[in-house]
Amino acid sequence: MLKISLAQINPTVGDLAGNTRKILEYTALAQKAGAELVVFPELAVCGYPPEDLLLKKHFVADNIKALDAIVKKVRGISVIAGFVDSDSVGKIYNAAALISEGKLQDVYHKQELPNYGVFDEKRYFSCGKNSGVWTVKGVKVGINICEDIWVDEAVYKSQAKAGASVLVNISSSPYHAGKLKARQELLAARARETKTQVAYVNSVGGQDELVFDGGSMVISPAGTVLARARQFEEQLLNDTVAPVLDEPEEIYKALVLGTRDYASKNGFKKVALGLSGGVDSALVACIACDAFGPENVTAVSMPGPFTAKATRQDARALAKNLKIELKEIPIKRTFAAYLKTMAPYFSGLGVDTTEENIQARIRGNILMAMANKFGGLILTTGNKSEMAVGYCTLYGDMSGGYAVIKDVFKTKVYELARFRNSMSRDAVIPKSVLLRAPSAELRPNQTDEETLGAYEDLDKILMAYIEKHASPQDIVASGMDAKLVARTVHLVDMNEYKRRQAPPGVKITPCAFGKDWRLPITNRYKE
Amino acid sequence: MLKISLAQINPTVGDLAGNTRKILEYTALAQKAGAELVVFPELAVCGYPPEDLLLKKHFVADNIKALDAIVKKVRGISVIAGFVDSDSVGKIYNAAALISEGKLQDVYHKQELPNYGVFDEKRYFSCGKNSGVWTVKGVKVGINICEDIWVDEAVYKSQAKAGASVLVNISSSPYHAGKLKARQELLAARARETKTQVAYVNSVGGQDELVFDGGSMVISPAGTVLARARQFEEQLLNDTVAPVLDEPEEIYKALVLGTRDYASKNGFKKVALGLSGGVDSALVACIACDAFGPENVTAVSMPGPFTAKATRQDARALAKNLKIELKEIPIKRTFAAYLKTMAPYFSGLGVDTTEENIQARIRGNILMAMANKFGGLILTTGNKSEMAVGYCTLYGDMSGGYAVIKDVFKTKVYELARFRNSMSRDAVIPKSVLLRAPSAELRPNQTDEETLGAYEDLDKILMAYIEKHASPQDIVASGMDAKLVARTVHLVDMNEYKRRQAPPGVKITPCAFGKDWRLPITNRYKE
Repeated sequence: MLKISLAQINPTVGDLAGNTRKILEYTALAQKAGAELVVFPELAVCGYPPEDLLLKKHFVADNIKALDAIVKKVRGISVIAGFVDSDSVGKIYNAAALISEGKLQDVYHKQELPNYGVFDEKRYFSCGKNSGVWTVKGVKVGINICEDIWVDEAVYKSQAKAGASVLVNISSSPYHAGKLKARQELLAARARETKTQVAYVNSVGGQDELVFDGGSMVISPAGTVLARARQFEEQLLNDTVAPVLDEPEEIYKALVLGTRDYASKNGFKKVALGLSGGVDSALVACIACDAFGPENVTAVSMPGPFTAKATRQDARALAKNLKIELKEIPIKRTFAAYLKTMAPYFSGLGVDTTEENIQARIRGNILMAMANKFGGLILTTGNKSEMAVGYCTLYGDMSGGYAVIKDVFKTKVYELARFRNSMSRDAVIPKSVLLRAPSAELRPNQTDEETLGAYEDLDKILMAYIEKHASPQDIVASGMDAKLVARTVHLVDMNEYKRRQAPPGVKITPCAFGKDWRLPITNRYKE
Repeated sequence: MLKISLAQINPTVGDLAGNTRKILEYTALAQKAGAELVVFPELAVCGYPPEDLLLKKHFVADNIKALDAIVKKVRGISVIAGFVDSDSVGKIYNAAALISEGKLQDVYHKQELPNYGVFDEKRYFSCGKNSGVWTVKGVKVGINICEDIWVDEAVYKSQAKAGASVLVNISSSPYHAGKLKARQELLAARARETKTQVAYVNSVGGQDELVFDGGSMVISPAGTVLARARQFEEQLLNDTVAPVLDEPEEIYKALVLGTRDYASKNGFKKVALGLSGGVDSALVACIACDAFGPENVTAVSMPGPFTAKATRQDARALAKNLKIELKEIPIKRTFAAYLKTMAPYFSGLGVDTTEENIQARIRGNILMAMANKFGGLILTTGNKSEMAVGYCTLYGDMSGGYAVIKDVFKTKVYELARFRNSMSRDAVIPKSVLLRAPSAELRPNQTDEETLGAYEDLDKILMAYIEKHASPQDIVASGMDAKLVARTVHLVDMNEYKRRQAPPGVKITPCAFGKDWRLPITNRYKE
């Protein structure tokens, strides 16, 4: 048997020197642990997905130089690592290198290029043709890359037929809730189908909207999990079997890691957010604390004319529980100045959402002013239900660098808040936050559900419409109210312009409002 | 000879009923003009590009129903029109229908699917296999779709070999400066290569960031242009040869059409913009007037503490020349309120860009408040040079629905402004606007070029870096200053986060900051 270590590392896109160091460091660790082969994820050398960096010839050349630097240092162990290969006519490939004894022994080119969902691989890569069957220490290994093992009857099959007893799959597979279980089922099926051992290595870490969740594993020809790495952490996997997280914890950890990596990989150590006393900002504050430590989180409470005393007190209680700094910056003076400035133009006209938006925009501006003066990343706190129907203010509460829970439906926000409270003996988020009817507090006696319908219904409709691309007719047929469906679908369609100007945030569902969702703004389709 | 009319129409994405009406209307016109065959652009039935609407099964089904409605009404003429076809296993195709005598006679499926630049066709469509050689009124016609005629040795060639004497290419080809000339050269080469007559129909109109520029044409087997439609207008082309516009006029018309269609297709009749007295907003005001008529344009001058008297006067003069309404809304009171609100936190700290951004953000908020109260679309006025290096304020001057000149470099802004002045006997844009050193006027004695370097140099560097994906080394080797190159490249890389939150705007270059440009925000590549 070949002794394999799976190096579940967190590369950074474009950080060729840093990724190279990390690959060599884990190679040394694997060697120390007695491994004969150490395997790194898809595009480990340059990070995944490099997107249009791949259109820069100098980037591809520099990534090959980085690979060469690795090759020169490898002795006494074999290494498989993902990189971008190029050929003499300038075509490029999503590739895996086999390295040993200071030499690049062979290169495999990915054959199945995903071009759906968040993936655009056909924009960049050509399809490979080589067999990818390598002999390592006398053992025949079939090497394939991510999608290669997902497509029925693809290269993994011919590798097994050619005598490979181990299939090595290197991946950078983005997270959504429950994905690990789906991967494990697929890999077990492939192991049984081909009667081979399957060694699967995934990367870990955040990259813009994507989180790679790790969970690398080794599966026996009978489909049994022999080893599994932790989710959301770097690990050199030899033989432990880490548990698979249950849903609320899994999603929570994805949000923490995605937010932490977005900040740290972009050079931020500190973050700030507006703390309203509502459940959304409460959850984001918890995630921020767990990602950066309370000493690096500043909460700003910005009471306005319609902020209830109870909400304000909840914001204070939460900040105290989390041990984060709370600044209170009232918006009343600035709001009055805007109203006075606009009075000559607005006189005789009723109050409407204009005045609500002004309040939200003052808050956005104050947060941005804090970030401009003191540095740090502003986290926005809007959830997916709001983003879907446009129940949010562009340049107001949408202002900031990272939208932590933009892919979390409101009903799920409550679930995660309850989960976070269960993590410690004393609930961090005050009970009243979880019990109060959600409100934007931009006019008297406002509640979300009066405008949008019950979140439980709204979220069901949104999930069907967004994730399944279901038609309004089908959603009504599934038992939802026809009027609510029609109104919701209309709101989703007409608010594409807002989403287009939103900051990125962690993808946790099969279809996030990011690279997964490419609807035109100009769109007269009446569904 | 077959009498062909080319129907250069302006479909709207998703407007199946409207597009159907337009196709029938132009079919009747062609019939009246004596045509035996009338040809409509690529995806004329559903509009191009429908993007992720194609993931909705009901959308594809509705588009086929729309085609059926057309089929039923066609008598006495043959029609070729683009639509989305689907097969029994749910694959979809970018397709052309041949219709006559109330019957769908045949369907061709596009074979070459572009998946680069702004195109994502492999995300949606499967490749076709049928030959596309049809006999219409005894003449053998080879039908192909857009990319099919651009790829060497592709289906057009086998169609000619199979005896087609006419090649019909239906396109929805997005504009960038000079594209028509490139198309004409290609089509003439194909005509000569295959010894066929080439009839090329392009759509016209704006769709989000794209403008389809028309310029449909018929080319003889010798490569001579026999007919050419106007650019940027709907036209039923029979035999006129419209001139090809020179560059400044071509770009100017693209900006007008793109802006007009974005507004009108999204239901806006009126627009507003901030008029600073600088050249960018002056040009955008002219474009807005030409797109919507002066009665539908509101300019807002928002003087601040650092607004020069001369700039303010220029804004007034321009508004007067254009006959547009000018509102003057000073920002001083609101600015003072922000400063007072933030004073407890900012005391003891120096003034920096924070205070500059606050001014820009107040202006953005005032414009948005006007739009919220009165309706209408806010046009932003930033140019491509600024967008590239991040010399703009997020949620400030970047606030608005459509960024008219976001793909126009600053040096080109001057060229277009001079062109617009040449259009009428009296220059509309005051000379002083064109002569004054550009400034954001957010602090005393500020000029752009002191911060960014001379625009002439900056734009050369940006063009190489963005359009050619050139390396800094190559740009320096081409004669540019090494320090300026390094600083500029660094600024472009680190401001990706701002561009990601910018509104869409008209693409006029080969690589706009839209679907053409997919760089990661998190990116540690040091070039």
